[in-house]
Amino acid sequence: MIHSISKIRVRYAETDRMDVVYHSNYLVWFETARIQMLDEIGIPYREIESRGLFLPVLTVSAAFRSPARFDDHLDVHLYMKARPRARMHFEYEVLRDGELLATGQSSHGFMDRQGKGQRPPADLMAKIEAAWCEGGPVKD
Amino acid sequence: MIHSISKIRVRYAETDRMDVVYHSNYLVWFETARIQMLDEIGIPYREIESRGLFLPVLTVSAAFRSPARFDDHLDVHLYMKARPRARMHFEYEVLRDGELLATGQSSHGFMDRQGKGQRPPADLMAKIEAAWCEGGPVKD
Amino acid sequence: MIHSISKIRVRYAETDRMDVVYHSNYLVWFETARIQMLDEIGIPYREIESRGLFLPVLTVSAAFRSPARFDDHLDVHLYMKARPRARMHFEYEVLRDGELLATGQSSHGFMDRQGKGQRPPADLMAKIEAAWCEGGPVKD
Amino acid sequence: MIHSISKIRVRYAETDRMDVVYHSNYLVWFETARIQMLDEIGIPYREIESRGLFLPVLTVSAAFRSPARFDDHLDVHLYMKARPRARMHFEYEVLRDGELLATGQSSHGFMDRQGKGQRPPADLMAKIEAAWCEGGPVKD
Repeated sequence: MIHSISKIRVRYAETDRMDVVYHSNYLVWFETARIQMLDEIGIPYREIESRGLFLPVLTVSAAFRSPARFDDHLDVHLYMKARPRARMHFEYEVLRDGELLATGQSSHGFMDRQGKGQRPPADLMAKIEAAWCEGGPVKD
Repeated sequence: MIHSISKIRVRYAETDRMDVVYHSNYLVWFETARIQMLDEIGIPYREIESRGLFLPVLTVSAAFRSPARFDDHLDVHLYMKARPRARMHFEYEVLRDGELLATGQSSHGFMDRQGKGQRPPADLMAKIEAAWCEGGPVKD
Repeated sequence: MIHSISKIRVRYAETDRMDVVYHSNYLVWFETARIQMLDEIGIPYREIESRGLFLPVLTVSAAFRSPARFDDHLDVHLYMKARPRARMHFEYEVLRDGELLATGQSSHGFMDRQGKGQRPPADLMAKIEAAWCEGGPVKD
Repeated sequence: MIHSISKIRVRYAETDRMDVVYHSNYLVWFETARIQMLDEIGIPYREIESRGLFLPVLTVSAAFRSPARFDDHLDVHLYMKARPRARMHFEYEVLRDGELLATGQSSHGFMDRQGKGQRPPADLMAKIEAAWCEGGPVKD
């Protein structure tokens, strides 16, 4: 498993008139978590794209238990529980002071600039393998 | 079933550096489709909220087949296939010139301003019943 | 002068916890107005970019008098009061039922894909000249 | 003068198809800078709003010199060069590795929940006075 924790502070722009975070913003935070995990295992997403390889979102879902609000400090946990093959799968948990606010999942493919499917690159697979563990976050 | 079609024209701000629509914007369009469906059956969402009743998103998901791009004219189809009980369920299809680009689902509760669960209001249920049909969009 | 009017319906995602439209969204609407004006004079922005020419925002400003709110139907007036030379200048007014809610301005350059300054293209200048008038909106 | 520096890392969602940050996002970062400055001087904006006092944006402007891009690490400098009276004025500079990418300004009023103008609260004025200095950032 790979486990990474990223920190989010809720922006005013992310709230809506219900005085909670507008739900689509959680998907942006999920991406922030993916970017940070790739940093932590040593292969920044910007580098991946600079080679002409892209990881588009194929599916995404979220379930909302309790609302996040303006200025909240949140922990976004990312879990990769299966090694990537044709696709990568991530699970997410959004917590505030240990309280679970939302969960989510996403899956991603590997494509070139023309949208043609690609195999996962060997160095990404090696970095994932090196970071794979049974327990805590990557940085622990 | 209730079926409604709303029109979206992709904004520049909705694109990302992959030259496609950033995925979280589909969730905003799903909401646009819900708002329009409620208009079409005769009970605007703004009126519902003005009574202190809110329809928060409980779950949402989307699957992306082919990217939408800047300036595309899209049809967002909304389907309600089961009458609401404690929750409302919607399905979505995003099409460009008849080509299916993405699908989605969402479920919603009924809450008061304090976040306490509520029953669906009788007039909303009556409007849904009146608009219920076997076939085409509400406005046909 | 060129004058164009575009229609905006305020999305839920555009509101914030103050129960008004979050201010940065007006800039997105200004862009919607520019896109529509270019459509109306016969040279869609998508076509301009497809030749490798871009019109980046160099400066933008807005002044807010009265808030727009969820579900408002707004008119965004765009005015081009001087023929473009090295730059294009636009002025904006956002109205709801005739009430002026906000004003704005933006200026834009002409650049190639590498960010190098370009002259305004002759066909754009010709379309602007053809649409130039003393009075009402382009489509009148 | 009050001077505060906040850190931004550019999100994928903030880019557009021109492969740069979409311009309206700078306004969101300006707000992030205001929130952080209020934190640093000891009067968080969330606390101000919790008393029913709001600081709406009255005017905002930005000038763009060089584009910010995905994953950039930016410094957003905020300057308050005059003590607030009926309004507060801020100036902004967005830098990447010391290079100035954009500048901006905003002005803000003080209003109650009904939109009625208010005087700046005494404790905010006192905090600003205490943090006032000739030179470097608040936290130095």
